[in-house]
Amino acid sequence: MSKDYFAARQKKLISLLKRSGAEALLVTSETNVTYLTGFYGDSSYLLIGKDQTVLTSDTRYTIQIEEQCPGLDVYIRKSTESMTAALEKVLKKTDLGSVGFESHIITCELLESLHGLTPALQWNPLSNLVEDLRMVKDASEIEETRKAVQQAQKGYGVLRALLTEEMTELQAAHELEHAMRRFGARQAAFDPIVAAGERAALPHAMPSEKRIGESPFLLVDWGAMTQKGYRSDLTRMIVHGRPTSKLEKIYNTVLKAQCAAIEAIRPGATCKKVDQVARKVIDQAGFGKYFTHGLGHGIGLDIHEGPRLGGNSTTELKPGMIITVEPGIYLSDWGGVRIEDDILVTRDGHEVLTSVPKEFESAML
Amino acid sequence: MSKDYFAARQKKLISLLKRSGAEALLVTSETNVTYLTGFYGDSSYLLIGKDQTVLTSDTRYTIQIEEQCPGLDVYIRKSTESMTAALEKVLKKTDLGSVGFESHIITCELLESLHGLTPALQWNPLSNLVEDLRMVKDASEIEETRKAVQQAQKGYGVLRALLTEEMTELQAAHELEHAMRRFGARQAAFDPIVAAGERAALPHAMPSEKRIGESPFLLVDWGAMTQKGYRSDLTRMIVHGRPTSKLEKIYNTVLKAQCAAIEAIRPGATCKKVDQVARKVIDQAGFGKYFTHGLGHGIGLDIHEGPRLGGNSTTELKPGMIITVEPGIYLSDWGGVRIEDDILVTRDGHEVLTSVPKEFESAML
Repeated sequence: MSKDYFAARQKKLISLLKRSGAEALLVTSETNVTYLTGFYGDSSYLLIGKDQTVLTSDTRYTIQIEEQCPGLDVYIRKSTESMTAALEKVLKKTDLGSVGFESHIITCELLESLHGLTPALQWNPLSNLVEDLRMVKDASEIEETRKAVQQAQKGYGVLRALLTEEMTELQAAHELEHAMRRFGARQAAFDPIVAAGERAALPHAMPSEKRIGESPFLLVDWGAMTQKGYRSDLTRMIVHGRPTSKLEKIYNTVLKAQCAAIEAIRPGATCKKVDQVARKVIDQAGFGKYFTHGLGHGIGLDIHEGPRLGGNSTTELKPGMIITVEPGIYLSDWGGVRIEDDILVTRDGHEVLTSVPKEFESAML
Repeated sequence: MSKDYFAARQKKLISLLKRSGAEALLVTSETNVTYLTGFYGDSSYLLIGKDQTVLTSDTRYTIQIEEQCPGLDVYIRKSTESMTAALEKVLKKTDLGSVGFESHIITCELLESLHGLTPALQWNPLSNLVEDLRMVKDASEIEETRKAVQQAQKGYGVLRALLTEEMTELQAAHELEHAMRRFGARQAAFDPIVAAGERAALPHAMPSEKRIGESPFLLVDWGAMTQKGYRSDLTRMIVHGRPTSKLEKIYNTVLKAQCAAIEAIRPGATCKKVDQVARKVIDQAGFGKYFTHGLGHGIGLDIHEGPRLGGNSTTELKPGMIITVEPGIYLSDWGGVRIEDDILVTRDGHEVLTSVPKEFESAML
């Protein structure tokens, strides 16, 4: 990711700020700081406005910031100087009358201490400004996401090859993460879900000591995170026992819903609409009340980001958005089926970034 | 961890609340909720007071909560009900006049929406109440930490056995995490630091593509997290080239400082005092300004928790605290040396929980 990408993002944020009437924004979200500067580290805040962009960090990161953010204005505090004392110095060097803060991120305690700094300065809540920008990915982010998809898919290939009935869900999850790292991932995009049989009825199952062989099928929900922090997110079913007609019916209902929703993805379509397309297919098959979550979400530097594909969202899709499409049917005491792919919204429709086969036959081990 | 432990922790918190004059506390820190209930999951808040203890969660976690917190009062919201709407219902069932909130955790946005809920209800900032309790570990937590130490130490044994000069820092870090998981760890306690040669001069170095063989020594800072979320945290040096007298001198200075500080650990000693003991040894050897961070920190459900062993802390050590002792000397363009162990404060002194050999000779590969 070249310096130009970060400059372009900062420029966009500054115009957003202008429109919202704010002079500057204090970015306290770690992920938003990474997005705007390319710096990966904690406890570092970015003050950004028309006339200044300053990163306040500490001595642990001096060299790293030089490497990752050449040319960026930096204030480095020593371990004996508090963050608020450092911010006070940074703010006093500016002639700002008011600063926006990320009210969905900042803690009450930090805001209180900011209020104490320079009584003349006004602090204004501004919510999700950077997150709104992050919804539409630039070329470098799309490239990173493709990498994250490749790492995840190659890792999954290794898991399928390695899988034995004696393995526990936990062991399988660990083998999967280890394999993705061999292909260059920094880590798993999130703790992989490996849920055998009825445990797949829990949409957020934590891998357990249950052995794979105890159930005829399992659900794997996984993704990779690249070195630069971009993420993929997929779900596939693996069937190693003899498939029942119930499993096949539910599987094909979920698959049909997923394919129909993907087909509906294009610029201008609302998130609500795409969600409805999937929900309708599942409703008509009689499983409506067992599809208990939203259809999908944006992915990027966070595993869950905007836009959300859900019943209430009137957000319109735009080229450059990357979203998951992941309908599911969950029957307690039996299990669950979910199928998930990552989709890029393009100018004239969409591109499915993931390519692990998903016909029912391909789920057989 | 039996139900009794959680009941005892809740009871202690309720007496703390009473002393601070609050009727109840809304616990919004995920870790604090885990500590008080044994539930592992996100987006779930605990209202706790003399007359009620209610966990507000959502449908993803219904079954998990039944398993992990038998007998706990729970309000489960559907995906269509917002967290604040759910909290409103929970609060209306009580006759509370005021509720405390965790001001160091809660976001301004959430507090604002809480204020909107029931205008008659007063919200009072309460900081670090649960964190103060968490500083002193109970028997079950000490047991879990011992497990985390074993997982980390066994994993490190595998890494030392596997290590080749061709391996990159990243590969070594991944092998280490994979090995700890084989011994039962849920994951690494934090992203392991594997820093070869001059990269060890960065106290928070991220593992890179640098090959181990490019430098005569490396620093490994790692730990394991148990299935229940407790963590260990160690640092050792590995020397595979011919050791220079400079390396040996710096190593032995750090080791002497570390051993002296560990000896000073006992109930009643202040954190500041223990830090000074280590700092004095390093100062006297002429490296004072190259020991750029605090001496250590508590470990538990978080990798960094109270108490902090630093120059300003007048906190007195108490039996049951578990702290790291990790002095270091960092010379840019050359490298760094840090040695770190985990120490339990006991009634009559301390117990070193970690046992990886640390004489200079044992660092040789």
